[in-house]
Amino acid sequence: MAQTKATHITWHDHRVPADRRREVKGHYGVVVWFTGLSGSGKSTLANALDCMLHERGYHSYVLDGDNIRHGLNRDLGFSPEDRHENIRRIGEVAHLMADAGLITITAFISPYIEDRNMARDLNPGGRFVEVFCACPLDVCEKRDPKGLYKKARAGEIKEFTGIDAPYEIPPGAEVVVHTDTESVAESAANVIRHLEKAGMVPTAGTPL
Amino acid sequence: MAQTKATHITWHDHRVPADRRREVKGHYGVVVWFTGLSGSGKSTLANALDCMLHERGYHSYVLDGDNIRHGLNRDLGFSPEDRHENIRRIGEVAHLMADAGLITITAFISPYIEDRNMARDLNPGGRFVEVFCACPLDVCEKRDPKGLYKKARAGEIKEFTGIDAPYEIPPGAEVVVHTDTESVAESAANVIRHLEKAGMVPTAGTPL
Repeated sequence: MAQTKATHITWHDHRVPADRRREVKGHYGVVVWFTGLSGSGKSTLANALDCMLHERGYHSYVLDGDNIRHGLNRDLGFSPEDRHENIRRIGEVAHLMADAGLITITAFISPYIEDRNMARDLNPGGRFVEVFCACPLDVCEKRDPKGLYKKARAGEIKEFTGIDAPYEIPPGAEVVVHTDTESVAESAANVIRHLEKAGMVPTAGTPL
Repeated sequence: MAQTKATHITWHDHRVPADRRREVKGHYGVVVWFTGLSGSGKSTLANALDCMLHERGYHSYVLDGDNIRHGLNRDLGFSPEDRHENIRRIGEVAHLMADAGLITITAFISPYIEDRNMARDLNPGGRFVEVFCACPLDVCEKRDPKGLYKKARAGEIKEFTGIDAPYEIPPGAEVVVHTDTESVAESAANVIRHLEKAGMVPTAGTPL
């Protein structure tokens, strides 16, 4: 029990302060929220960013359909209420993870401004970075990685974002990436440049 | 963009491997699940453990009523279904955080074996450490930090665990702490010793 002797732990209110988490991590906890049409490159870009941040020794994580839809949100369908609740829960989990000190990257269509702003409001002080994946519908539809546009055009899927459901373009996104003309590495580097400028991560050679 | 040149990022399936997360963190991602009666010391112990782990430079986080009930689970009440859903969501979030590499500490009464096992099953390979806060009911009731036992005895709160709702003692908890006779530091040190023995964190001086 040698390691406990030096520690005076009282019965009440002994909590890890936020700046200690930052010290241990080497950067701020922050939410990087990708939004855009299906096929606009959100998930690919989120994972590429995760890799680039890990190469720097940072602590990041991706929340996307793969780990949310079959777990936390497996009780939710695609009704308007369920879509809203889907984004609400993701916003809350992203906030908890950022509070834990992680650079938390989310990759969901999240078509409504109101829902995204609810997630934003949980993370004041520049701790929410909205990244709009601006890719024209025809390019997304040509990519159609999951064959969903084809089904939506055939009427097999109803209320598909961009086809028969709206996508609300973010009026104040911190970063806009053009995934139709930029490479994945270029887009991810744009996000990292924003994190550096905003003082969320150290700039090369200069710790926070 | 110098930092991206060395990285070959392909359009598909470029993900951070689990061992890279472990390397960056210096320990495994694991869920430490405290369970026990109201007043048995779960939240205090969870936060003390979080502090001790941060003193070692580890990456941990506490999920408890303070950050869950008014956020992610604010739509849930205290009906049997809602209590089950409460623990289900906490189990899913704890799993995501452990997957992100964090030592994720939860502090909820979680009275039912079935619910706790659902959380356990998400984290195979020793990545789930159940810690039973074994404190006799009369001690918990004497502490009564939130005045809830008093209200339950007066009939103002119904189905209160230990009074008129059951608590199912874990038959296979990895760690049992006796918070009526041990100090907070002793109980927390017992948990850390288990994490060391199980190879989830380095033993002093010996990295993983």
